[in-house]
Amino acid sequence: MVNVTASTALQLRSLVRSNGELEVSLQSVPVPEPAADEVLVRIQATPINPSDLGLLFGAADMSTMKVGGTPSHPVLTARIPDKFMKAMAGRVDQSMPVGNEGAGLVVKAGDSPKAQALMGKMVALIGGEMYAQYRCIKAAACLPLPADATAADGASCFVNPLTALGMVETMKREGHSALVHTAAASNLGQMLNRICLKDGIALVNIVRKAEQEKLLRDMGAKHVVNATSPDFMAELTDALAETGATIAFDAIGGGELAGQILSCMEAAINGKAAEYSRYGSATHKQVYLYGMLDTSPTEIVRNFGMAWGIGGWLLFPFLQKIGPAAGQALRERVAAELKTTFASHYTRTVSLAEALSPEAVAVYGQRSTGAKVLIDPSKGMG
Amino acid sequence: MVNVTASTALQLRSLVRSNGELEVSLQSVPVPEPAADEVLVRIQATPINPSDLGLLFGAADMSTMKVGGTPSHPVLTARIPDKFMKAMAGRVDQSMPVGNEGAGLVVKAGDSPKAQALMGKMVALIGGEMYAQYRCIKAAACLPLPADATAADGASCFVNPLTALGMVETMKREGHSALVHTAAASNLGQMLNRICLKDGIALVNIVRKAEQEKLLRDMGAKHVVNATSPDFMAELTDALAETGATIAFDAIGGGELAGQILSCMEAAINGKAAEYSRYGSATHKQVYLYGMLDTSPTEIVRNFGMAWGIGGWLLFPFLQKIGPAAGQALRERVAAELKTTFASHYTRTVSLAEALSPEAVAVYGQRSTGAKVLIDPSKGMG
Repeated sequence: MVNVTASTALQLRSLVRSNGELEVSLQSVPVPEPAADEVLVRIQATPINPSDLGLLFGAADMSTMKVGGTPSHPVLTARIPDKFMKAMAGRVDQSMPVGNEGAGLVVKAGDSPKAQALMGKMVALIGGEMYAQYRCIKAAACLPLPADATAADGASCFVNPLTALGMVETMKREGHSALVHTAAASNLGQMLNRICLKDGIALVNIVRKAEQEKLLRDMGAKHVVNATSPDFMAELTDALAETGATIAFDAIGGGELAGQILSCMEAAINGKAAEYSRYGSATHKQVYLYGMLDTSPTEIVRNFGMAWGIGGWLLFPFLQKIGPAAGQALRERVAAELKTTFASHYTRTVSLAEALSPEAVAVYGQRSTGAKVLIDPSKGMG
Repeated sequence: MVNVTASTALQLRSLVRSNGELEVSLQSVPVPEPAADEVLVRIQATPINPSDLGLLFGAADMSTMKVGGTPSHPVLTARIPDKFMKAMAGRVDQSMPVGNEGAGLVVKAGDSPKAQALMGKMVALIGGEMYAQYRCIKAAACLPLPADATAADGASCFVNPLTALGMVETMKREGHSALVHTAAASNLGQMLNRICLKDGIALVNIVRKAEQEKLLRDMGAKHVVNATSPDFMAELTDALAETGATIAFDAIGGGELAGQILSCMEAAINGKAAEYSRYGSATHKQVYLYGMLDTSPTEIVRNFGMAWGIGGWLLFPFLQKIGPAAGQALRERVAAELKTTFASHYTRTVSLAEALSPEAVAVYGQRSTGAKVLIDPSKGMG
């Protein structure tokens, strides 16, 4: 049994000041007492997902980053360009906890049987505020891990697995039969490949590096296209013609890629067309931007007819749309395939303080494919 | 009674050659004999809509335009940039007739009672190939005009009226309660204003010139924003906050405007928000691009959260989606309000040959708001 002795513990906070300064720091906050239906979890593993970076750094220009404070209580600051401050209006001058998901040990439990049943268990949890030594949360938000799973095994059990499954589910629900994924060698992309291989769904992977191509091909991926190839457009068109993919999930967001995908989809469709259609093909082509690894503007050269759409895609609204029963079915699949289909890999594990070091930010802040950082808030805490 | 004497007549044709040359010319084609359920219409008025320009000029760079041939049989040529030739693949080396809609006199009719009933009547018609002296068409595709209507009155009775009504219908069907329109002083925009005023729907008009602002305000438009104003973004945000518009129909397509509209919608929503949402507002914001007055790339600065979409919108797929009964209801409204809500105005009327003159192309080819050209194929034909 682990005992909680301290009455306060560290929590990472992100603050956007009205003067356009971002400040990320560690705060001492009271360790909460769990209510009847709650448990107190000592967090041991919590990933820095691309989806956390928005709340963590806001729209700050990270090239202006400075780290001050002390080694145990670093304070990271950066400037937010004026043009983005309007989008930040809702969070100005509010110190915000960060961290979508994590895993750890239940060290205290409320009186309810459901909470008590989790006492001493290793659990995965989702609900924000995970970049902290302790997280008090409803017992219902916890997923007990298999006996042989470590906190690191369970740390990324929600966001990436449900996002990958959500893409396949969206593809089916919107009437497509194959899909495209960008930044495809990421942890998420690897999961998506494992899902598609297992389920027999054709997937076109777009990457930017030869080693990423190799990594995916070694996993068994059939369609891998390198966006830096001089023949990228032709190669992508061929892969789209072969698979019939008319929906894409793009993690990059900025630049020309989303438009290029639509353009190649149209070319692949028209390559099979019997008759010219003046407004382009009547087949609806869709790209969902679910991330923004590239925060620069999205530039769309509209040479793909009129039957197209680009839009945002987010896990939580998707889960809301499909309803609790369908969501539960996805969660059960994740639990059943935690160490296979849904395994995650990390580049490095850092303490809360180390997460604010320039070295760590350089790894996860560059939003680069496959460089994933895990925070262990129990690390270096004696 | 008008008699058809000639066995051949002129038809405007657009041809994209595989070498990247566009050629628009007048061809002598046989005058068809109507089948039992068809009528032969002597076209007297057919508008050059922005929606005709795609088929007429393809993706040609009109700054390279040359006009040769003879005054009665001009031949217009222009270069199509290589990068757009892929999108032209389906029409290469096929000479294509042009012209979405028109109006004229029924001069010959098939044996069926429905066709015979139209003999000698002035009708409006839709179905392509209208830039011609004669159009043979199913009687069912003709809308008989009121006795006091000229061909010019009825020439634009489908595309613009149904598009404007389609926007309002789309707004309602997708759960929005007010809308935004760009290039709002166009013939279509003026119609949309008359519809919205009549139906009590809030409409935010975006224009680029002071005289367009005045024109719309004089019509009774309440919300008119000038995109060239130094305070455009703030003024648009205010209008969006007042109206609650979360859907826009954009005729321009290129440049930053579509993204700016989404950005101002988000700011208007967040101005009323009680709590910060890390992924932006949960309210879906939609921009449909239904035209491309600006063929340059669409540039989207994504500072409006994740609940958004941009896509193509076209009249014919929309009509298909709502089904024949709903479509018929829209048509009946157009017929009932032809000289009021759905009246069109033209900058100039030209013959088929004059339509290919540099002077005429300079008017309609610039795709500028409100400069609408009408072709009268019976003009100058003796």
